[in-house]
Amino acid sequence: MPRKKQIAVVGATGYTGLVLVELLLKHPHIELQSLCSETYAGKKFSTVYPAFSGLTDLVCQKSSLKLLQKADLVFFASPNGIAHKSAAALIKSGTKVIDLSADYRLRDLKVYEKTYGFKRSSREDQSLSAKSIYALSEFRRKEIAKCKGVIANPGCYTTASILALSPLLKAHAQGLIELDLNSIIIDAKSGVSGAGRKAATEQLYAEVNENIYAYKVGGKHRHIPELEAFWQELLGHPLNITFTPHLVPMTRGLLATCYVRLLTKSTKKTLRKIFMDTYAQEPFVELLDPDISPQTKWVVGTNRALIQVELDERSNQIIVCSAIDNLVKGAAGQALQNMNIAFGYAENSGLELAPSLP
Amino acid sequence: MPRKKQIAVVGATGYTGLVLVELLLKHPHIELQSLCSETYAGKKFSTVYPAFSGLTDLVCQKSSLKLLQKADLVFFASPNGIAHKSAAALIKSGTKVIDLSADYRLRDLKVYEKTYGFKRSSREDQSLSAKSIYALSEFRRKEIAKCKGVIANPGCYTTASILALSPLLKAHAQGLIELDLNSIIIDAKSGVSGAGRKAATEQLYAEVNENIYAYKVGGKHRHIPELEAFWQELLGHPLNITFTPHLVPMTRGLLATCYVRLLTKSTKKTLRKIFMDTYAQEPFVELLDPDISPQTKWVVGTNRALIQVELDERSNQIIVCSAIDNLVKGAAGQALQNMNIAFGYAENSGLELAPSLP
Amino acid sequence: MPRKKQIAVVGATGYTGLVLVELLLKHPHIELQSLCSETYAGKKFSTVYPAFSGLTDLVCQKSSLKLLQKADLVFFASPNGIAHKSAAALIKSGTKVIDLSADYRLRDLKVYEKTYGFKRSSREDQSLSAKSIYALSEFRRKEIAKCKGVIANPGCYTTASILALSPLLKAHAQGLIELDLNSIIIDAKSGVSGAGRKAATEQLYAEVNENIYAYKVGGKHRHIPELEAFWQELLGHPLNITFTPHLVPMTRGLLATCYVRLLTKSTKKTLRKIFMDTYAQEPFVELLDPDISPQTKWVVGTNRALIQVELDERSNQIIVCSAIDNLVKGAAGQALQNMNIAFGYAENSGLELAPSLP
Amino acid sequence: MPRKKQIAVVGATGYTGLVLVELLLKHPHIELQSLCSETYAGKKFSTVYPAFSGLTDLVCQKSSLKLLQKADLVFFASPNGIAHKSAAALIKSGTKVIDLSADYRLRDLKVYEKTYGFKRSSREDQSLSAKSIYALSEFRRKEIAKCKGVIANPGCYTTASILALSPLLKAHAQGLIELDLNSIIIDAKSGVSGAGRKAATEQLYAEVNENIYAYKVGGKHRHIPELEAFWQELLGHPLNITFTPHLVPMTRGLLATCYVRLLTKSTKKTLRKIFMDTYAQEPFVELLDPDISPQTKWVVGTNRALIQVELDERSNQIIVCSAIDNLVKGAAGQALQNMNIAFGYAENSGLELAPSLP
Repeated sequence: MPRKKQIAVVGATGYTGLVLVELLLKHPHIELQSLCSETYAGKKFSTVYPAFSGLTDLVCQKSSLKLLQKADLVFFASPNGIAHKSAAALIKSGTKVIDLSADYRLRDLKVYEKTYGFKRSSREDQSLSAKSIYALSEFRRKEIAKCKGVIANPGCYTTASILALSPLLKAHAQGLIELDLNSIIIDAKSGVSGAGRKAATEQLYAEVNENIYAYKVGGKHRHIPELEAFWQELLGHPLNITFTPHLVPMTRGLLATCYVRLLTKSTKKTLRKIFMDTYAQEPFVELLDPDISPQTKWVVGTNRALIQVELDERSNQIIVCSAIDNLVKGAAGQALQNMNIAFGYAENSGLELAPSLP
Repeated sequence: MPRKKQIAVVGATGYTGLVLVELLLKHPHIELQSLCSETYAGKKFSTVYPAFSGLTDLVCQKSSLKLLQKADLVFFASPNGIAHKSAAALIKSGTKVIDLSADYRLRDLKVYEKTYGFKRSSREDQSLSAKSIYALSEFRRKEIAKCKGVIANPGCYTTASILALSPLLKAHAQGLIELDLNSIIIDAKSGVSGAGRKAATEQLYAEVNENIYAYKVGGKHRHIPELEAFWQELLGHPLNITFTPHLVPMTRGLLATCYVRLLTKSTKKTLRKIFMDTYAQEPFVELLDPDISPQTKWVVGTNRALIQVELDERSNQIIVCSAIDNLVKGAAGQALQNMNIAFGYAENSGLELAPSLP
Repeated sequence: MPRKKQIAVVGATGYTGLVLVELLLKHPHIELQSLCSETYAGKKFSTVYPAFSGLTDLVCQKSSLKLLQKADLVFFASPNGIAHKSAAALIKSGTKVIDLSADYRLRDLKVYEKTYGFKRSSREDQSLSAKSIYALSEFRRKEIAKCKGVIANPGCYTTASILALSPLLKAHAQGLIELDLNSIIIDAKSGVSGAGRKAATEQLYAEVNENIYAYKVGGKHRHIPELEAFWQELLGHPLNITFTPHLVPMTRGLLATCYVRLLTKSTKKTLRKIFMDTYAQEPFVELLDPDISPQTKWVVGTNRALIQVELDERSNQIIVCSAIDNLVKGAAGQALQNMNIAFGYAENSGLELAPSLP
Repeated sequence: MPRKKQIAVVGATGYTGLVLVELLLKHPHIELQSLCSETYAGKKFSTVYPAFSGLTDLVCQKSSLKLLQKADLVFFASPNGIAHKSAAALIKSGTKVIDLSADYRLRDLKVYEKTYGFKRSSREDQSLSAKSIYALSEFRRKEIAKCKGVIANPGCYTTASILALSPLLKAHAQGLIELDLNSIIIDAKSGVSGAGRKAATEQLYAEVNENIYAYKVGGKHRHIPELEAFWQELLGHPLNITFTPHLVPMTRGLLATCYVRLLTKSTKKTLRKIFMDTYAQEPFVELLDPDISPQTKWVVGTNRALIQVELDERSNQIIVCSAIDNLVKGAAGQALQNMNIAFGYAENSGLELAPSLP
């Protein structure tokens, strides 16, 4: 039996870290070597989360380069601005890095600095950024497998949006359909765990419950640059999308309702074929039967994306709905999927998760 | 002191009827004469809803023309297809009618029949339909005050959408701004009470909770015809909008996130002025300060609509968010507002409802 | 028309303060003079809570004795340990004080200091404490009306528990029934707003939602001493109750399920009569029809308590369920009720609140 | 590799059936042979639950003896009154039966008939009932392994209650502590999925949400007889408990807060030892560290029970909190655990479920 890979998680007590731990504890080929948490260093993980009493004896540690270098792979589930401080050194000494924060999602570090406010001037870091991969698994498998830089896990909104619209944008680039690219609107709805586990008044139960609202309306959300960068590469030229996130009174789940106008006539059947061609063999992406709208509850706890394509013939609008679990396919699950690809494991190792209805 | 008007409610035990009863019990100028309920006829209202124990002794009755004719005004909070059976006779004998169902929202009865599936062939009913008013209070005050037909209360989605976009469409019609009318997208999110109080598997707590999804995707929702009819009148020509409703895990509240593309350049300031010009004097519509997004929780329990206008200058999209309580401004509250207008009461009589946070 | 009383609220932006403001804004006989908030001083109340945009122009202020002395009555909706710093001076200069915190609930300041950890050694404060009234309105009307000290508003758990069990304890003291006083168990369930509006990890939506748990199990909750003190007075001798609070995934509402064993035989009818004798004339307490269990949703938004009495003849246990809105009858509503009593207004002024179902 | 056991599920589309299917699909040693559903016979399971699109092709079938006899084991996740119609025949022809309904929980068929209203007069059924096992896994392992009758899966409330109090009752029976057996009170709180997937008004989202209430107050719940029968066997004499169930606004999770009075003095340490002696080796029962209260969220999605023991020395009450997932340890999970025992598999096969926080 091959040696189990040693894995470290930085930011293990945040919500993404927590889900990573849940998934890693059951993964057949790896061993959880160290859990790092700045807030809870020195405490048992099962003291921080008593749900794990009797399930793990791991103790949270302060993160250090020395500690992380012992691992075969480090997941950064930390806030933005942490991973880039040690990623280069880790990779240099042979440890793989999967970053769930935004540090390596934007190749253009000026855009990163403008979007996230952290200085990234070291030459080493710039060179690492150039070698890193924006790791939306379904579209970057080969690159992830041979990546020499950081495997940059996409954001949750981006994952749902890319899966929803990329087949159409690709078909447009190939001349199969003609879209009004300026008309792209993504109206996204996320459960509250997307904001992480920080004690903020606006995340209190009594403020979130029985409530829905948009935020960062008018092109202000940080996921827009990574989304546009990904599609710019796919299309060969820049585009400006409209993106409106909403906070929904639920813990997990993310739905992107996406709109793009068709400039010529087409049919729902043709559109469905475009999606089937892209996703038929994908283990984690499922095009639903006609007229079935994906519900976020159907994917929570799984690494799946469920997709619906409709055409409103009155207005010639294509509407694509895409549902994921923001913490699994939108974060920890996709990170594991990328780890499986990077290590050459079966892509669904540790990710054969059944729906957990009701 | 003037005689209190006698009021009857048909469908008093459904959710809209229930909220009507709550509001009417506290209205200073009226008296609740009869509550009609097919399901609970013969039972005390406080047996059906024990929350009213000690608050009202009214007994639910079977509805009959004779009974309803005793009232000065009848609210139909019944399912579609009920009001039109007795509205003409009631109005003929001097009883005012406010219909919260869809029966008199569409002047074109062919569209009604196609949308709702009920035959409406009687000449009397057709003639009544022509005299009836689509009673979105803020835009139809004068017509409601002198209405000789049915006061047709708009749907909840329609109310939020009309309040959100009509100022822009009016400005477009007046040549103040130029919009791409084919680009109108309304992505709406509603609490589950909008579906009424019917025992359906898909409305069970365990199905709705921790879940969000779109439904009737692709131009299939019944509120589209009334919305387009209203705007066609305002614009002077037909238009095709894209409308996607979503079910949100909350009991009450409705948010419409509306998108329309500006064909020329403009500024957020100009757009805000367009809204201020329309709504500055409105008691129930409030344009929020810049960059504040309306939360549905802020309006639940009130008759108010809160509105935000933003311009995404990158994509030239205008985004308007509009939040209402689907059961108050979207149903029972607006019905009371219309009653106040029809009877010449102060428009906010019985509607001075404070927010009920948290 | 008599001059409207001038009212100040200290802690106006916490949840209890917020509900006080909502109720006071609609109260016919008073005027909101000043809203005090340490956190938001200098900000408009409608900036802190945009739900009030267009509804009030009041600006939050730092609290000061000078400011508060201008008011006819001050509500302290502040954390424990604040009110007692200025209550004596306020009362001396003629301003009435209603304290929603715990500062004047316990006449024995040693118990207070042990329970809450604040030193209360000033002679003036001790003397004030002796004159203050534990103001559970239904049982202390006369004392509240002529109170020369602080009107100490009871805690939410206490209110529900006292209303649930006091009729039985009174009947026991009168020899009408014989109870096993050591068997009293109160298993209480509260919505999360009871914890106030503080940014704490355990109050986050993602931690509270889809979750229920007990806390402070084993006689550790701070409301136990005030409860026992109240009943000790009623019974004439001390008692030790068992009290277990639970956190329920809802914003508002509190249910106390109370158990006490009957030592002799009795009937449900007799027990109901004991409750009717106490509450028949009460405007805000309602004994429900037999076999109807109170639901918290039935009282949310109202100042009412709904009560059910049952006898399990197999085990000779009496079970009493009592439901209130923790923020209204359990806090701000009862405070207003007490203000009405203190000022000689109709007790239900500003409190004629209909249920707000669904 | 040994042949995989063939499994049938009757009532596969109800909530317990659904969770059984989720668990069985991932179980390493079995194969799902047939899913029976009266309502959805002829439809693909993934049409009824589109969450399973791409995950299973099984089609729902009408249940028949012939079909079920092909299986090695049949789970009845059907309503009460179904299993007993075919259990005897199945067992006779060599198919094992695990019944999740109440049909074989009560050995005394007169109590069953009184409690559930179904006639059970056939001699064969009576004889089968006598051979059947009340299968609370932790207390009936040996009997389950060699059971010749029906393996009767306990109810959810009963499971939580038995796990909470049996160690104490056993210690009482052994003379280690002395309890007031008449003082046993179980105040239980359950998520709404416990009521199953039936379209009933009182299960609608808008009725359940933001609401808590007791039901069947005063010794009326159907789980009382099975609970008392179990403990009567353990104690050697009958007892009357007080049991109050509550409905909590959450989908899954069950908390039993149990009270029993200690007649002599003891210590928390002694009490904890009693629990440790019983549960130290149990894979699915965990005594939490002192002062940690179990949260239902910590067990949802797992087969675990988390337990807290406290002693209120003021009132000499022992308080035991016990949290389970009503659909897993309280139904489908325990059924699988029992299947594992019956087939001689590792008891945690297919049940190594990590918590799914947040």
